Amino acid sequence: MTLAFGYLGPEATFTEAALIQLLEARGHTDAERVPMHNTEAAFDGLVNGRLDGAVVPIENSVEGGVPATLDALTSHGHLQIIAETLVHVKFVLCARPGTQLGDITTYSTHPHAEAQTRGWTARNLPGAHYLPASSTAAAARDLAPLPPGSDGQPAADAQPTGAGSAGDVRYQAAICPALAAERYGLEVLAEDIGDITGAVTRFVLVKLPGALPEPTGADKTTLVAQLASDRAGALLELLEQFSTRGVNLSRIESRPTGDGLGLYQFSIDAQGHLAEARVAEALAGVHRVARRLQFLGSYPEATGSRVFVAPHNTDESFAEAQAWLERIRSVGL
Amino acid sequence: MTLAFGYLGPEATFTEAALIQLLEARGHTDAERVPMHNTEAAFDGLVNGRLDGAVVPIENSVEGGVPATLDALTSHGHLQIIAETLVHVKFVLCARPGTQLGDITTYSTHPHAEAQTRGWTARNLPGAHYLPASSTAAAARDLAPLPPGSDGQPAADAQPTGAGSAGDVRYQAAICPALAAERYGLEVLAEDIGDITGAVTRFVLVKLPGALPEPTGADKTTLVAQLASDRAGALLELLEQFSTRGVNLSRIESRPTGDGLGLYQFSIDAQGHLAEARVAEALAGVHRVARRLQFLGSYPEATGSRVFVAPHNTDESFAEAQAWLERIRSVGL
Amino acid sequence: MTLAFGYLGPEATFTEAALIQLLEARGHTDAERVPMHNTEAAFDGLVNGRLDGAVVPIENSVEGGVPATLDALTSHGHLQIIAETLVHVKFVLCARPGTQLGDITTYSTHPHAEAQTRGWTARNLPGAHYLPASSTAAAARDLAPLPPGSDGQPAADAQPTGAGSAGDVRYQAAICPALAAERYGLEVLAEDIGDITGAVTRFVLVKLPGALPEPTGADKTTLVAQLASDRAGALLELLEQFSTRGVNLSRIESRPTGDGLGLYQFSIDAQGHLAEARVAEALAGVHRVARRLQFLGSYPEATGSRVFVAPHNTDESFAEAQAWLERIRSVGL
Amino acid sequence: MTLAFGYLGPEATFTEAALIQLLEARGHTDAERVPMHNTEAAFDGLVNGRLDGAVVPIENSVEGGVPATLDALTSHGHLQIIAETLVHVKFVLCARPGTQLGDITTYSTHPHAEAQTRGWTARNLPGAHYLPASSTAAAARDLAPLPPGSDGQPAADAQPTGAGSAGDVRYQAAICPALAAERYGLEVLAEDIGDITGAVTRFVLVKLPGALPEPTGADKTTLVAQLASDRAGALLELLEQFSTRGVNLSRIESRPTGDGLGLYQFSIDAQGHLAEARVAEALAGVHRVARRLQFLGSYPEATGSRVFVAPHNTDESFAEAQAWLERIRSVGL
Repeated sequence: MTLAFGYLGPEATFTEAALIQLLEARGHTDAERVPMHNTEAAFDGLVNGRLDGAVVPIENSVEGGVPATLDALTSHGHLQIIAETLVHVKFVLCARPGTQLGDITTYSTHPHAEAQTRGWTARNLPGAHYLPASSTAAAARDLAPLPPGSDGQPAADAQPTGAGSAGDVRYQAAICPALAAERYGLEVLAEDIGDITGAVTRFVLVKLPGALPEPTGADKTTLVAQLASDRAGALLELLEQFSTRGVNLSRIESRPTGDGLGLYQFSIDAQGHLAEARVAEALAGVHRVARRLQFLGSYPEATGSRVFVAPHNTDESFAEAQAWLERIRSVGL
Repeated sequence: MTLAFGYLGPEATFTEAALIQLLEARGHTDAERVPMHNTEAAFDGLVNGRLDGAVVPIENSVEGGVPATLDALTSHGHLQIIAETLVHVKFVLCARPGTQLGDITTYSTHPHAEAQTRGWTARNLPGAHYLPASSTAAAARDLAPLPPGSDGQPAADAQPTGAGSAGDVRYQAAICPALAAERYGLEVLAEDIGDITGAVTRFVLVKLPGALPEPTGADKTTLVAQLASDRAGALLELLEQFSTRGVNLSRIESRPTGDGLGLYQFSIDAQGHLAEARVAEALAGVHRVARRLQFLGSYPEATGSRVFVAPHNTDESFAEAQAWLERIRSVGL
Repeated sequence: MTLAFGYLGPEATFTEAALIQLLEARGHTDAERVPMHNTEAAFDGLVNGRLDGAVVPIENSVEGGVPATLDALTSHGHLQIIAETLVHVKFVLCARPGTQLGDITTYSTHPHAEAQTRGWTARNLPGAHYLPASSTAAAARDLAPLPPGSDGQPAADAQPTGAGSAGDVRYQAAICPALAAERYGLEVLAEDIGDITGAVTRFVLVKLPGALPEPTGADKTTLVAQLASDRAGALLELLEQFSTRGVNLSRIESRPTGDGLGLYQFSIDAQGHLAEARVAEALAGVHRVARRLQFLGSYPEATGSRVFVAPHNTDESFAEAQAWLERIRSVGL
Repeated sequence: MTLAFGYLGPEATFTEAALIQLLEARGHTDAERVPMHNTEAAFDGLVNGRLDGAVVPIENSVEGGVPATLDALTSHGHLQIIAETLVHVKFVLCARPGTQLGDITTYSTHPHAEAQTRGWTARNLPGAHYLPASSTAAAARDLAPLPPGSDGQPAADAQPTGAGSAGDVRYQAAICPALAAERYGLEVLAEDIGDITGAVTRFVLVKLPGALPEPTGADKTTLVAQLASDRAGALLELLEQFSTRGVNLSRIESRPTGDGLGLYQFSIDAQGHLAEARVAEALAGVHRVARRLQFLGSYPEATGSRVFVAPHNTDESFAEAQAWLERIRSVGL
């Protein structure tokens, strides 16, 4: 049976690009790729069996953590991250074939992409109007040339956006990923037009709970911890559970619990795998001191950087300490 | 001369409501209120002298910190927060007078507001289409009934949104703050329709550097610290600079520095005023250990809750320790 | 067979008083009490089977830890503390029956006791000479009246001290515990003559390794940890292994390792029993970070004060965290 | 006027050797050296003007801190350490000229020296009796050959010890420092007979309060801090006051306060000089959190090892932080 993986749609976004990378790495290039309306829908698809996995963005080098993903993972509560991948965020300006830069009086894209390309558009499209779209790919899709023999109607599953449908577009160019320009037959007029170059988005592959991926020595463990109180020192106490066992954190983000200003939970990536003793003991420690702790998975880190572990924090050191404990427990010394 | 205060426009948003609250508290009810296109424009208005102050949202009890504000304050680097206020976030559904709920086939609002009212719209407007707008107030404004004697054209300063201009609206209802419905002559069909009730947004009043507000005993100090390294323990070391002097944090949020995944700066609200010794010494400590530290102001906390200070962290205790140091320095003991 | 317990001799010292207390508490009042020349000899008696237990002083409320005991326990390395008791340190001035205070021109005692009674002797025996003795009890024993029918020779096992033998004493009074005055037939001229009143010495009962005493909820665990380095922070790191698991320390004393100035090991009493999860995990943590860790026993605390354990550090909380770990390990979440 | 320096007498002890070293280093070789009966007497000599300085042992590489000195410095409360020196502890066995090892049936020394040479005496003087003396030097002095023309009486200021006076010695050999053997005309039969070789004692030069010695970059600061409570974490809190400012500790010793078991004060040597900002701020911090803090001096470290200071803890870094504070205080940013 063909596997089916969801991604935050529409088609041809950076999220589909991330899914393509992940499927290639896992040898599932023939899997079905299913665009999903939003994160909740993707997660529902896992629960109801429609999907075997779902890819969602979790962190961006410019914007930081992706709140919708972090909160959806937390509130769902029964999903597991099994892989991650990094995608370079590069926008192109594209138009129907034959369009010149000088022809563009109005352009469309998602508001976030508009904000990230404002420097380039101010310099290269002065005076042009901006029309918001619900996604970068939607802006491209709606601009797509009619296929030969078309009756002038967009594809049946296409949702018209505020920017207008294909037969009635009020803009001449879209800002989107290269993947979208290619898929919708648009011509790229300018590449890598983001104001900040080098931006990277990190995506994770999520599935229903099951066996953890094997530890590789270059792993990451994701969790969400809610502090037991908002008193000073509660965050310090949380961090000490990691530092005492020599577990480094590669990401920590505060998210409101939604119960009022000043009440936080922390979304954390720790270096290492649950199968490693120092990570397991740190998590057990956090379990004790936190009001609530959610484990979201241990999985290989995208770049494969091996985690440095000091000699006194290795599995061997933990095992020796445990053996020593057993010995003094049984013979009194 | 009349004072002028900017706010994140357009008119009739929660930000204007926050500004109205702040002006009332400060006795400046006759000040001019100037809608600004975005945070940068508001801050530029301070620098070029057009504005005497600017109000921006900094934190929301549901969404967390407002990235655009946090990042703009950080990158601007020469502004100071002098006050804060809290606004309850309540959305209404409104329409031109006479419209019934059953007449609504399409509605418009900002994507964030759409996300926050999805539960209500699914139950009460099943099948209705959503058109994105650039702001909740813009959705209301564009729906506004034509004034008597109007020539059918919108106000000169109105920017048409993707959702259509007043003379050509393709939707029958808007989701917006009560302030916007009232200002644009729309009828409220439903109140407080957010999926989460009790949401609060915190706004700050920003101005050019100058004298700090006097300490009140219920103050907050805002700063942004970039860690000296991404090594484990750098965050712990930062937090210890506060805890060693008994300074509590009421908010800590990680923000990417934009230089790559895993590099963070922390936006922090500390309890207390720079004029207090424990806060000053903690900030000096952070100045030493951080790669970069930005002070964004000490100002009265919105709810007026007095900060608890342990006896050994009072100004008196610091002064006694300083006097003791002077004594042993001068006479050797 | 009669049990035999050693104590730091000679007879009638505070150590014998401590042993008597311990034997009463354990229902072994008929056990043999064997005076030992020094701590090493007492410990050798355990190893060679001559003794079933040995009592040694470990801490004094005035002088602090007893170096000879701490170092002997550490260097021996195969002994276990199974009980402790507290003895009030009270000295008496005693003499042969009929002696008056005014008759005393010279008195004898151990140098430590001399130092602790210097205030009293200066006021009450002005001008009197002090002769050092090898122990307080030896000073008393050598002064003992000859038994009726005696041939003028001291008991065969008595070692003459520098202060003179029984037949040739050059002093008229001894400063010693009440037990010694009583045993040697001396008359008490003044009681509780120490300059500091309320002094207490803590003694421990030591035996060969075996089963640990059952936990009582009011226990103490003794250990010796040598730091992995003399770098700053090594002690802090050690203490954090306890604080992270909520284990309080009731005593911590630095002892040189003997390898040079500035190299320390720490003799520590922690509150709690090895059978408790928080204590076991803290000890395992110290085992990892310390260069060397020696467990010296878990045993009931002398005063029976129950140890306070916060809810997140109870055995139940540890067990829940462990169960949670097992669950996420097996089903992935 | 000739300067007068006291030392813990009698003459010819390691303490006099330490004083000789200190006087040579300071160019005061012609100063008078005054033996004092005990530490209190030496300190009284400073207060009443008889002495310009006093040398006392503070730490031994085998035995650890010297309780009598630590406690006397603490309880006196108005003295200042201005220098330190290290002396190698080497004992000799000496006797009247012409004595052979085989002639020795009894030997004398201070009980501490006896304990430290027990291995050697067991091997080389099997069966010999030990007579306690009040000091190693007293054992040597009392054994000194009568000077030519002597009337058989010891020097007028000599206090007879329990071991017998010169005309009536009951032992043939003394264990003492080489300085004592030399001074009293005794012949050295064996050198460096301590069971542990390489032992070092650290001595400090104490005087009345006055200007601190100039900082050299290789300094030490000595203090005594009493914890504000015996609760868990009080010691951790104390240590953090140092670690937060990057101040390393080279010695930390617990001493009972004398008020009961489990109540401690800590005698501490910190690396650095009070004139350095990080040390001053750490001490001020300890002053705030401790129940009681006593400064005992900043002075050059004996070996001259320069203290490593991280870039963010230098005086420059503190000055920059202070300047930054002044700036944001005055202009608001």
